[in-house]
Amino acid sequence: MANDDPDIRSTDPSRGAAPDSGPDLEARLVAAAVAIPAQVVQAKGHGHAGTAMALAPTAHVLWQHVLRHDPADPEWTGRDRVVLSAGHASLLLYTQLVLTGYDLELDELALSRTLGSRTPGHPELHHTPGVEMSTGPLGQGVASAVGLALAARRDEALHGAGAGLFDPTVWAIAGDGCLQEGVSGEASSLAGTLGLENLVLVWDDNRITIDGGTDLAFSEDVRARYRAYGWSVIDVDDATDLDALRSALEEARRRDGRPALVAVRTVIGAPSVLRGGTPAAHSGGFGADEVSAVKAALGFAPDAGLHDLLPDDVRATGLLARDRGAALHREWDAAEAAWRGARPDLAGRRDALVAGAAGADPAALADALATVAVDDGAATRTTSGAALAAAREVAGLWGGSADLSSSTNVAVVGRAVDRATPGGDFVHFGIREHAMTAMLSGVALHGLWRPYGSTYLAFSDYARPSIRLAALMGLPALYVYTHDSVAVGEDGPTHQPVEQTASLRTVPGLDVVRPADAREVVAVWRRVLATADGPTAFVLSRQALPDLGGGEASEVGTARGGYVLWRSGSGDELALVASGSEVHVALGVARRLADEGVAVRVVSMPCLEWFEQQPADYRAEVLPRGLRARVAIEAGSRQPWYRYAGLDGEVVGIDEFGESGSGPELLHLRGVDAGAVEAAARRVLG
Amino acid sequence: MANDDPDIRSTDPSRGAAPDSGPDLEARLVAAAVAIPAQVVQAKGHGHAGTAMALAPTAHVLWQHVLRHDPADPEWTGRDRVVLSAGHASLLLYTQLVLTGYDLELDELALSRTLGSRTPGHPELHHTPGVEMSTGPLGQGVASAVGLALAARRDEALHGAGAGLFDPTVWAIAGDGCLQEGVSGEASSLAGTLGLENLVLVWDDNRITIDGGTDLAFSEDVRARYRAYGWSVIDVDDATDLDALRSALEEARRRDGRPALVAVRTVIGAPSVLRGGTPAAHSGGFGADEVSAVKAALGFAPDAGLHDLLPDDVRATGLLARDRGAALHREWDAAEAAWRGARPDLAGRRDALVAGAAGADPAALADALATVAVDDGAATRTTSGAALAAAREVAGLWGGSADLSSSTNVAVVGRAVDRATPGGDFVHFGIREHAMTAMLSGVALHGLWRPYGSTYLAFSDYARPSIRLAALMGLPALYVYTHDSVAVGEDGPTHQPVEQTASLRTVPGLDVVRPADAREVVAVWRRVLATADGPTAFVLSRQALPDLGGGEASEVGTARGGYVLWRSGSGDELALVASGSEVHVALGVARRLADEGVAVRVVSMPCLEWFEQQPADYRAEVLPRGLRARVAIEAGSRQPWYRYAGLDGEVVGIDEFGESGSGPELLHLRGVDAGAVEAAARRVLG
Repeated sequence: MANDDPDIRSTDPSRGAAPDSGPDLEARLVAAAVAIPAQVVQAKGHGHAGTAMALAPTAHVLWQHVLRHDPADPEWTGRDRVVLSAGHASLLLYTQLVLTGYDLELDELALSRTLGSRTPGHPELHHTPGVEMSTGPLGQGVASAVGLALAARRDEALHGAGAGLFDPTVWAIAGDGCLQEGVSGEASSLAGTLGLENLVLVWDDNRITIDGGTDLAFSEDVRARYRAYGWSVIDVDDATDLDALRSALEEARRRDGRPALVAVRTVIGAPSVLRGGTPAAHSGGFGADEVSAVKAALGFAPDAGLHDLLPDDVRATGLLARDRGAALHREWDAAEAAWRGARPDLAGRRDALVAGAAGADPAALADALATVAVDDGAATRTTSGAALAAAREVAGLWGGSADLSSSTNVAVVGRAVDRATPGGDFVHFGIREHAMTAMLSGVALHGLWRPYGSTYLAFSDYARPSIRLAALMGLPALYVYTHDSVAVGEDGPTHQPVEQTASLRTVPGLDVVRPADAREVVAVWRRVLATADGPTAFVLSRQALPDLGGGEASEVGTARGGYVLWRSGSGDELALVASGSEVHVALGVARRLADEGVAVRVVSMPCLEWFEQQPADYRAEVLPRGLRARVAIEAGSRQPWYRYAGLDGEVVGIDEFGESGSGPELLHLRGVDAGAVEAAARRVLG
Repeated sequence: MANDDPDIRSTDPSRGAAPDSGPDLEARLVAAAVAIPAQVVQAKGHGHAGTAMALAPTAHVLWQHVLRHDPADPEWTGRDRVVLSAGHASLLLYTQLVLTGYDLELDELALSRTLGSRTPGHPELHHTPGVEMSTGPLGQGVASAVGLALAARRDEALHGAGAGLFDPTVWAIAGDGCLQEGVSGEASSLAGTLGLENLVLVWDDNRITIDGGTDLAFSEDVRARYRAYGWSVIDVDDATDLDALRSALEEARRRDGRPALVAVRTVIGAPSVLRGGTPAAHSGGFGADEVSAVKAALGFAPDAGLHDLLPDDVRATGLLARDRGAALHREWDAAEAAWRGARPDLAGRRDALVAGAAGADPAALADALATVAVDDGAATRTTSGAALAAAREVAGLWGGSADLSSSTNVAVVGRAVDRATPGGDFVHFGIREHAMTAMLSGVALHGLWRPYGSTYLAFSDYARPSIRLAALMGLPALYVYTHDSVAVGEDGPTHQPVEQTASLRTVPGLDVVRPADAREVVAVWRRVLATADGPTAFVLSRQALPDLGGGEASEVGTARGGYVLWRSGSGDELALVASGSEVHVALGVARRLADEGVAVRVVSMPCLEWFEQQPADYRAEVLPRGLRARVAIEAGSRQPWYRYAGLDGEVVGIDEFGESGSGPELLHLRGVDAGAVEAAARRVLG
């Protein structure tokens, strides 16, 4: 295939596809998909079977007939993406991965929820082939799928040349819980606005939650709500009707300018007579007798073991998905080769993004960041914005803001992403910090761009569940948080962060950087963009901060997370340790004390996580173990700083809310200024 | 008025009401309400005028004609409640408070956003008479208003005897930002399900956000979305049409089984020609010339000063609201007296709730909690549930769960709250941790009940913004968080909290309690329910924990936040400090070391906040300054514990995510078990 205008979409993934197996074999395959979760959970004594059973026919149709995937190559670029937002139904996913021939064995299902197995309680990224995202906290998968779809649309718009090579359908599977969570609503509203026609949300409409029927708390008209968002809505009234499911899913993935909600009316735990349709089907085994009854109802021997559920002919039928996948993959490879030949410019550009996904080229990055002014006494948010703009191209940065693009300094030159401009440069996430953050994870999962999003630090609280999940997945998302202390001033305590920096530092795998001046800002960006192994929260000042004059030592030291910025003599009598906007305060006090003959050092600590990763001897060099007169200073919660202050030191910080007033007034009122630092220093000197 | 069947609702608050002032005076009053924010913000140079201007006519109609309030008594029980969810428009609220004669002066508006003024940048509870809630973080006010409405409906259902004495209308005023935030969607969905007909949401439909037009990110059909939630929707096409506004607001407050959305189509910053209808009207002064033009357009002299905007006759017109309020109040007082006469049983019951709002009667509380078993080695979640049930009546507890009522052990005997059962005993919040938490604040603001809500600790992340706001307001909400460590086990890392306990401890004003056994659980509940000055997060184990045998010392010590649970000899060689499920581990290690002759103490620390409030000598008695061989143990982030471990001690904790496996396996794998504690103890002993 060599074609100047290749269009992979002419290959209907359904076409070469359906297991050529006859209705009986297919029916037995579906029955196995239903019975396996029931059997596994009963044998384990815990886990979630009900949804995995109810959605098994839907999943069967999706994985066997509709999905563009290749079980032999779970990382295939041309694949569709499936996000199981209802993560507790992990057995639904694992079962399909086994049945369609991924590198996952039936016996591994029996090990589900066992330490070290590849079938953990909830799906985990990088853990099981075919799992596209870690899910479990409800709603997250839906919102990240929106981000995935957004990134895919941009990929196709910028690189695809209309060929559809990079135009996967993104499928999210969600339950009522996912749709009750606000984050899914936020993201779904934006998906409608942006016309993400490559997104399909399969809704398990089972009318049951753990506490009882959804009428307890969820009587809204979900379909009408999604129509209000600008989605199309497709109903499947019988979740066991394979033809209806197939036509619904195929209709849903049609590119018609709108995302699609496929509402599948299911009965949780069906065909269990005792537990089906009740909250008791949500988790736990159904009981040996009831599972026997389920198996019997599905045409199995009541005492069938796990392998009995999947005799060779049925197994072979499922594995036809491999052939289908291989064919799709081959066709795609040919189309991709044609595209490369026809559009080497686009291929080159895209290849560069792929290559940069693990981190920007250090030399190019250094050149780009060298253009940023580092001695201008700007607010760190300002310099950060300049660094972002400078590094955007070489680091493949793409993102936006939750309606604060200017004041967080992330606005970039270019076009806004909208319905007609999927290749746009900037995403207006709306006032949706949570969905934004989940969507950044989706963009990172897509794999081409290094995503960023911005808001005020105080509102990082809205996004905690998505930040955590990004950290758990090791996704290199960048959170630009500005207005980083009570120095925010007049907007008052609701807008003044106090505990957020400390609180973000508790998240495993999240790096929290709070640079002290322009030079540290640039050094931080340089280190962050050089690798891509997890998320980073930038904590940046609203107010201007003086150049600390640290020069190259600052640049090197920042990358180590903490360093001696300045010292008088040995600096062995007193250590002032600070981050961000408090470092210059510490420096001023240190100079005054040095004039009195105190051997003082100022340690700038822009990133505690990085500092803790340094070798012990470096850490001891910065903060000698015997140096006990220590004052740590940060305009926020003291909690992280006792680690450095010790029992003989003091922490100058803020453990109460602010007030409405000017920034300097507030810092003084809350005891974080030169006077307070000096007083503490004199106390610890004794 | 003495009547066996009083019905205060027969008093139409509009009736005795409208300023009997003629259209001209009223028009001038409205013009003043528009001009004042423009003038104030221009003079200050910062602040938010645009929305306050655009909504001024709406607010005028509400406060002058529709609202049931008494400016002379902002705490009047019979008043309606207004929550300004769009808190940045604080001048809208402050202006109406001035114009209708609350204890707030025009000159105080000029001081807005000034330290110590009663007109902070965003409205703050307990700060300004007539402000019902602190707002600013978008969406929060909408969700808390739903909680307020829920509480009011229950009050009326249980106490009102159909008289409408306790049946206020709850008004929330929201902008597009509030409606984009997921928390408002969660709460609005539940409000529809529960048929909160006493709730009105006034939506400032201005089609503008900070970054630009709402079409950038918010093209959904909000009206259709709210209809899907089960709300009625009323449109006002011209935000300056006082008659249309009045009839819309009066229609909206009708009790028709549904909450109402009043969509007011506004032009932000109108009548400014330059800035009106643009993002530039959101914040900052409009410029001296433009404000002059605005004043001229409103019929004022272009150089009119603040007081010139409110000449005496106009001022007097506004103050007619006082007469209207006084009349409403008098009628209500009479009806209330009649109700007291007719229903002393209900009055007594309600009075008891009012009296108990500041804390439960200690003796009754002690009696109630004495029934809870404290030596049964139960999971702390189990004992906590028993304590909640035992104290429910004497402490006025009311709440529910985000779909985890059984596994968080908060299910109580009684009826679920639903549309037909507003007086119900238990709220099914649905899978909406964020809205639940915001709604608990609304219930607390209502003032009769001590609200509680439950979920798994890992999912407390979803509710951070509402937790923070409750802490800022000092609201006595109770958050019951169970499944408090990696010991959760098989559900895996998405369900295993690691950083949440530490992270909650950073929130100013929030008490975080993590009791170690049943006795500590009960002691914690006793202390928490005795006062009502802020929120408390209960951090409780899924797994059973042994009775520590602390007896009365445990009970007293728990209330102090930390205490010496056990010691060998002086206990001055080594201190093991722990909370919750790790205290028994520490105790086991201590006993082993004591057998070897080590003078060791075990400090149980169920609440760091309470411990830090103790006098220094008590703290030094528990943890002597000279005792440097210390090990702190908690199955979660180490961050809070360095404060106690010091530079010579160690912290045994978990700073990485868990895995899917059994609880004990996970604790061992992550290094929190007896072996790890003993090894650390031997290291610090040197």
